[in-house]
Amino acid sequence: MKIKPHDLSAVQAAGFIASGQLKSVQLVQSCLDRIAETDGAIKAWAYLNPEYALEQAAALDRRRQAGLPTGPLHGLPVGLKDIIDTRDMPTQRGTPIFEGRQTAEDARIVEMLREAGAVIMGKTVTTELAFVHANETRNPHNADRTPGGSSSGSAAAVAAGHVPLAIGTQTNGSVIRPASFCGTFGFKPTRGTIPRTGVLLTSKSLDQIGTFARTLEDVALLADAISGYDQRDPESYPHARPSTVEGARQEVPVDPELAWFNLPFNDRLSEAAAEGLESVIEVLGSRVTRMDPADQLGELVAVQARIHEYEIARHQAEVFDAHWDQISNTLKPIIERARKIGEAEYQDALAVKASAESFFAEFFQDYDAILAPSAAGEAVSFGSNTGDPIFCTLWTLVGLPCVTLPLLVGETGLPIGVQLIGPAQKDDRLLRTARWCQNHIAAKAA
Amino acid sequence: MKIKPHDLSAVQAAGFIASGQLKSVQLVQSCLDRIAETDGAIKAWAYLNPEYALEQAAALDRRRQAGLPTGPLHGLPVGLKDIIDTRDMPTQRGTPIFEGRQTAEDARIVEMLREAGAVIMGKTVTTELAFVHANETRNPHNADRTPGGSSSGSAAAVAAGHVPLAIGTQTNGSVIRPASFCGTFGFKPTRGTIPRTGVLLTSKSLDQIGTFARTLEDVALLADAISGYDQRDPESYPHARPSTVEGARQEVPVDPELAWFNLPFNDRLSEAAAEGLESVIEVLGSRVTRMDPADQLGELVAVQARIHEYEIARHQAEVFDAHWDQISNTLKPIIERARKIGEAEYQDALAVKASAESFFAEFFQDYDAILAPSAAGEAVSFGSNTGDPIFCTLWTLVGLPCVTLPLLVGETGLPIGVQLIGPAQKDDRLLRTARWCQNHIAAKAA
Repeated sequence: MKIKPHDLSAVQAAGFIASGQLKSVQLVQSCLDRIAETDGAIKAWAYLNPEYALEQAAALDRRRQAGLPTGPLHGLPVGLKDIIDTRDMPTQRGTPIFEGRQTAEDARIVEMLREAGAVIMGKTVTTELAFVHANETRNPHNADRTPGGSSSGSAAAVAAGHVPLAIGTQTNGSVIRPASFCGTFGFKPTRGTIPRTGVLLTSKSLDQIGTFARTLEDVALLADAISGYDQRDPESYPHARPSTVEGARQEVPVDPELAWFNLPFNDRLSEAAAEGLESVIEVLGSRVTRMDPADQLGELVAVQARIHEYEIARHQAEVFDAHWDQISNTLKPIIERARKIGEAEYQDALAVKASAESFFAEFFQDYDAILAPSAAGEAVSFGSNTGDPIFCTLWTLVGLPCVTLPLLVGETGLPIGVQLIGPAQKDDRLLRTARWCQNHIAAKAA
Repeated sequence: MKIKPHDLSAVQAAGFIASGQLKSVQLVQSCLDRIAETDGAIKAWAYLNPEYALEQAAALDRRRQAGLPTGPLHGLPVGLKDIIDTRDMPTQRGTPIFEGRQTAEDARIVEMLREAGAVIMGKTVTTELAFVHANETRNPHNADRTPGGSSSGSAAAVAAGHVPLAIGTQTNGSVIRPASFCGTFGFKPTRGTIPRTGVLLTSKSLDQIGTFARTLEDVALLADAISGYDQRDPESYPHARPSTVEGARQEVPVDPELAWFNLPFNDRLSEAAAEGLESVIEVLGSRVTRMDPADQLGELVAVQARIHEYEIARHQAEVFDAHWDQISNTLKPIIERARKIGEAEYQDALAVKASAESFFAEFFQDYDAILAPSAAGEAVSFGSNTGDPIFCTLWTLVGLPCVTLPLLVGETGLPIGVQLIGPAQKDDRLLRTARWCQNHIAAKAA
């Protein structure tokens, strides 16, 4: 087997670049070759300029040669969901309404990527306005299936070896689910960890940024590089961020305490997913406590929907008003319904959300993480939507850090993820727990 | 001898806070006691709210207790020059024109300080609009002398043990000179390292942010915490920053090559300063090459003045127009002169500046640092200005990183600094060289 640069993990590639064994230009060229070879079928990229990517890589190689400081992502190509503004590439938000849209400013996280030494590879396909309606991306494992969404292209590009790292966003299940469907790792840090300035606003209360990669360390490496306080984002918190890459490298001091919730919608799991999760719980043995949570927990799904829909209809009212004829028929009925949600109903939903957050703050005094499905099963057929997000909804609503590990295999051999959810602002501890679970399950399976 | 918390360096205090031996509340209280005891005479503070400082410290102590992530400045009080915007304290810019001025936003560096876990202690006295006209602060070593300016209060507060760390700005000599006069370390990183968004704009081409502390490691620790890319600052560069605190802790791989410039204005040095610098050169021996640079180098002083004056008169034109009667008689003639500088003259000055920058980029291929005076000598008498900045002018103009070490003593026993200037964007190497010089001189003096 011959390893090509695009096969390397981000941590591996960064190591070779730091030691001088690999140039960023070689890595980027290898990724571009891989894209040229496979993206005709996958369609992960909304914008890609190979020359410009290579130029960035060459400049970074010269910088290293000159002995100038290098950042944690020096020379590594990163894909950006096409709702993240870049001053040197269009940001078209998955809709013809924004075709050719070009901003003068970078999103805050793009500034951070440049400072970290990343090559901004291009923009990855998103669903329409990062919501329900699918765009053209296909699952790299099976072109008849969806890659999941709304971060469709980011998940597919990482899974296909186009880039070692990509960024997505999650308002319901848009990082964890596509990662599960595409067989990558996916990590959505605690709400407020990664600033959203310059990223399409779909729900100020729920929008969260997350990362895709092919290893646990890699999703953490990227998340750390784009974590930071930004007062322009009302959810951004003015405190230190944990080092999640250190978390992903740490041994647990004692075996973790995990919880499994018997939730009313668990019957939506496919047979293979349900069996796979059962086998994971068996392997972890006494570390997992099965719980029957109060019924209210299941009701949070409706609370998330109310907030999400109410907010997107208001935040993007101008877009819907001015371009209604260019909105998909998948999205239209949702926006029509959303416009009828009253202020009181919305405020009630926010109050329930706040009390759910208090519940989990308390809950994590006794547990290290919740073990949960990442998705209902394998990637569903390609179509107008990108699959059921319900197994992510609760955790997005309460803003907890979530990570999905590609541990299971479905009925037709497609990947299925296993999700772990941790306490707020202790994302390093979540990744430490995830590492333990991954190693423990691999050891028992061997 | 009993060590009180306010006597600790930032690195020491951070270590005790991390290990649980010291609470931020205790450190801040000790600093507040020290301020209460001595600031009647020194007048370093333009704004100080002891209860609010203690509240911040208590919140940080609780955060640590809760096991939440902590930053590199966790629990450490920092003083801010009163031209750095804070959303929770007034920023009055050393002039009655801005009395009670309160912004809704933090400066970018204040966001970074909060994320790093700093206690924003208060605002330190600046000269009028961070330019020539002195305000009320006195030198902590001798109340008849100036602390230097324009970062008068930041230098005085650190020297007096009011805070372990403070931030200032330098457009000509406003960090290095007050640090020299007050006997602290002072560090002005490469232009563009620390973003200026939310800091009074006096000269877009020259304004640079720097740090004060009582150890070399401490000035680096603070500078690292506020370094980062910000596209809103046109001088901010989109690349990784060096870890200067690592630089300050490193041994040099080989003894450094230093240069000393015989500059035309070296005759302005006081006898003690000239003798002290001679003895430093002697101690460093063959590591120092004395050079007679081209005459043009001395002419850069006029170039700096032209750019500085042209820009402040334009950037703050509205202030001067609307409040001329509240401008000091020290500043008025400078602004009147500045208004007459023509666009062509200004553009010529910028072109000379650019060619000087190229000269130094080349120069540092052969040298690790330039050894130079920090100031003409001891702090001068308290009066309407804050001393001669000429020994800083060149280095500020070309945006190179500078550090001053409090190594010499003047005619009346007051401190005098020794300055080292390094290559652009290699601030870590400059601090490594500075550490070597400090250790080498201390060893030879012993």
